[in-house]
Amino acid sequence: MTTNDSVEKIQAPELQTSGWLNTPQPITLASLRGKVVLVHAFQMLCPGCVQHGIPQTQRIFDEFDPERVAVIGLHTVFEHHAVMGREALEVFAYEYRLRFPIGIDKPNPQQVVPHTMMTYRMQGTPTTLLIDKAGYLRLHQFGHVSDLHLGVSIGTLLAEEIAEQASPAITAAKNEASAQTGCDAEGCRT
Amino acid sequence: MTTNDSVEKIQAPELQTSGWLNTPQPITLASLRGKVVLVHAFQMLCPGCVQHGIPQTQRIFDEFDPERVAVIGLHTVFEHHAVMGREALEVFAYEYRLRFPIGIDKPNPQQVVPHTMMTYRMQGTPTTLLIDKAGYLRLHQFGHVSDLHLGVSIGTLLAEEIAEQASPAITAAKNEASAQTGCDAEGCRT
Amino acid sequence: MTTNDSVEKIQAPELQTSGWLNTPQPITLASLRGKVVLVHAFQMLCPGCVQHGIPQTQRIFDEFDPERVAVIGLHTVFEHHAVMGREALEVFAYEYRLRFPIGIDKPNPQQVVPHTMMTYRMQGTPTTLLIDKAGYLRLHQFGHVSDLHLGVSIGTLLAEEIAEQASPAITAAKNEASAQTGCDAEGCRT
Amino acid sequence: MTTNDSVEKIQAPELQTSGWLNTPQPITLASLRGKVVLVHAFQMLCPGCVQHGIPQTQRIFDEFDPERVAVIGLHTVFEHHAVMGREALEVFAYEYRLRFPIGIDKPNPQQVVPHTMMTYRMQGTPTTLLIDKAGYLRLHQFGHVSDLHLGVSIGTLLAEEIAEQASPAITAAKNEASAQTGCDAEGCRT
Repeated sequence: MTTNDSVEKIQAPELQTSGWLNTPQPITLASLRGKVVLVHAFQMLCPGCVQHGIPQTQRIFDEFDPERVAVIGLHTVFEHHAVMGREALEVFAYEYRLRFPIGIDKPNPQQVVPHTMMTYRMQGTPTTLLIDKAGYLRLHQFGHVSDLHLGVSIGTLLAEEIAEQASPAITAAKNEASAQTGCDAEGCRT
Repeated sequence: MTTNDSVEKIQAPELQTSGWLNTPQPITLASLRGKVVLVHAFQMLCPGCVQHGIPQTQRIFDEFDPERVAVIGLHTVFEHHAVMGREALEVFAYEYRLRFPIGIDKPNPQQVVPHTMMTYRMQGTPTTLLIDKAGYLRLHQFGHVSDLHLGVSIGTLLAEEIAEQASPAITAAKNEASAQTGCDAEGCRT
Repeated sequence: MTTNDSVEKIQAPELQTSGWLNTPQPITLASLRGKVVLVHAFQMLCPGCVQHGIPQTQRIFDEFDPERVAVIGLHTVFEHHAVMGREALEVFAYEYRLRFPIGIDKPNPQQVVPHTMMTYRMQGTPTTLLIDKAGYLRLHQFGHVSDLHLGVSIGTLLAEEIAEQASPAITAAKNEASAQTGCDAEGCRT
Repeated sequence: MTTNDSVEKIQAPELQTSGWLNTPQPITLASLRGKVVLVHAFQMLCPGCVQHGIPQTQRIFDEFDPERVAVIGLHTVFEHHAVMGREALEVFAYEYRLRFPIGIDKPNPQQVVPHTMMTYRMQGTPTTLLIDKAGYLRLHQFGHVSDLHLGVSIGTLLAEEIAEQASPAITAAKNEASAQTGCDAEGCRT
């Protein structure tokens, strides 16, 4: 449906973060190969994120098997940096009872837009990313994504998992390609 | 997610109907091979159907490519038959501006439960069925199904379509099996 | 707010009904003097009524003291009469668990529009009427009325009750006037 | 309904603020005599405020005549002070497009709870206050207030305006009493 089946797949650039919440250690996309990965890029004072995107992300985190679908929040602050620092984000995550891991997009001293947001050329927040089992970026959408369409996209990527298990050679080839191009080639390896 | 990947797949029994709305001619499941099929079984005076299931069904009918996802309503009247006849259903469909095809489940003179409902052993309304491209019943759920989970199931079945295109031999075999057992053989028995 | 304070008040014409549900005996507006009366005119197959007006009416019936706010449904069928008869309405009220009294607007053999609906010159369904303690029609609105605005109107009319208690002479005069013109006399005229 | 008709009325203590947004000059309750006043006490990182109370307050601000109903937000920060300062509040009000005046409850160096919140003995946020035309506190409710019940309370207080106009002597007496007791007597004048 909303996945980019027709376009050339690109490896999802690695996340560049300056810190994490709700996880004992930083999370890399590379470590999540084999899972479908949902990344929800948000800002804590973005109304559309607070009303739709964040509750949707929390719901997916709660309802899906973490061995099959990994859920990550990414705090991509590109405005009002002074009032959306780590301490404010921690209060926000605490008050809204967010339980999914949240990475803080690494600030860029030269620019208002942080590193990961820049690498992915996100238009703003909320932005939803879906990355398939092999590490390819398959959905990149700015604004509200309906539960129905996000569900279809997740289901599509989950099903591929089965297809790949049925044809391990292809999976191996994909992973090898992934290692070759890597995230450096995309400009984003940490 | 909610699809029955682990259980033995059964061919979806054919619909048994006494009439149709919103379609120039009756629809058979057999004619929909190659598409994912959503069947929403409802009653026009069932509050849960009117509030959740029917709007969800209309949304899927509006948003998906009919060449990939076929949407069918099935009016499975098992109570208050006198006030939920064809004329009442036509008014209901007109007032609620339903555009998807609606089959009327064939009444059984010996029983309150109509034929298709009985064949599928539905617990009540609303009931959601998903049938895959090869005609197998993959989701059978009584009550409210969230957009997220229904989306995942549809996405999973849509993705299989691609897998089958990649392995035509298997698809052919499946279709042959489907033709052998047929929908009549599977479904039209009460 | 939405009450007609600036216009000349008219006595609310009496309801003309051919039957009732959820009440042991017919209800007249005349019998409700001293209470604020909410009349929700609806049709059982009107989507706007089913989605907004009827749940709102049920909520008001549940949450307000019946000694202060009387709630009445009025089934004003002006189309598709064959499928919205008493038996269908009973099933509807049963399935939607409606507990407030519902009068059936008296059909007019000469017209599609029933008697009360004609008398009040309602534009369609849903229509919300508010009648004050003295029997005057104070709100007459076609379409959806927000909870906020309906609440303000009810509160305004409830407060008048207090004012009248503080000035019994005026209340008596009002009631006398009400008795003179009467609800039968006021309402049954077209 | 939810107004305190049965209890002894108390004058609403004056707001104690350290700053204002969305108004060219500070607002006092004293200056609003003759209007019904809604005060919505909130914190910008309180989920219940953001989801329900603040949109409700904005709606009332938008829909009511400001000459009859005055709407005030009050930022009553009693936790996480470091991340809910004036600059953060300004960003919040800007991003959520709040247009109603917002007072910042005056911090108390000796306590976590600010002055107005303490004076009113608020339990937390959101807290809804309604003050009548004569300056009496008539509704004081912690947590979510439904549109229906808030509407009824506002309607009740708006209707009293009419009653008072009909009996000016009483109104004058009330206002005199209000001037005598003032907010100092209640312990809250700034």
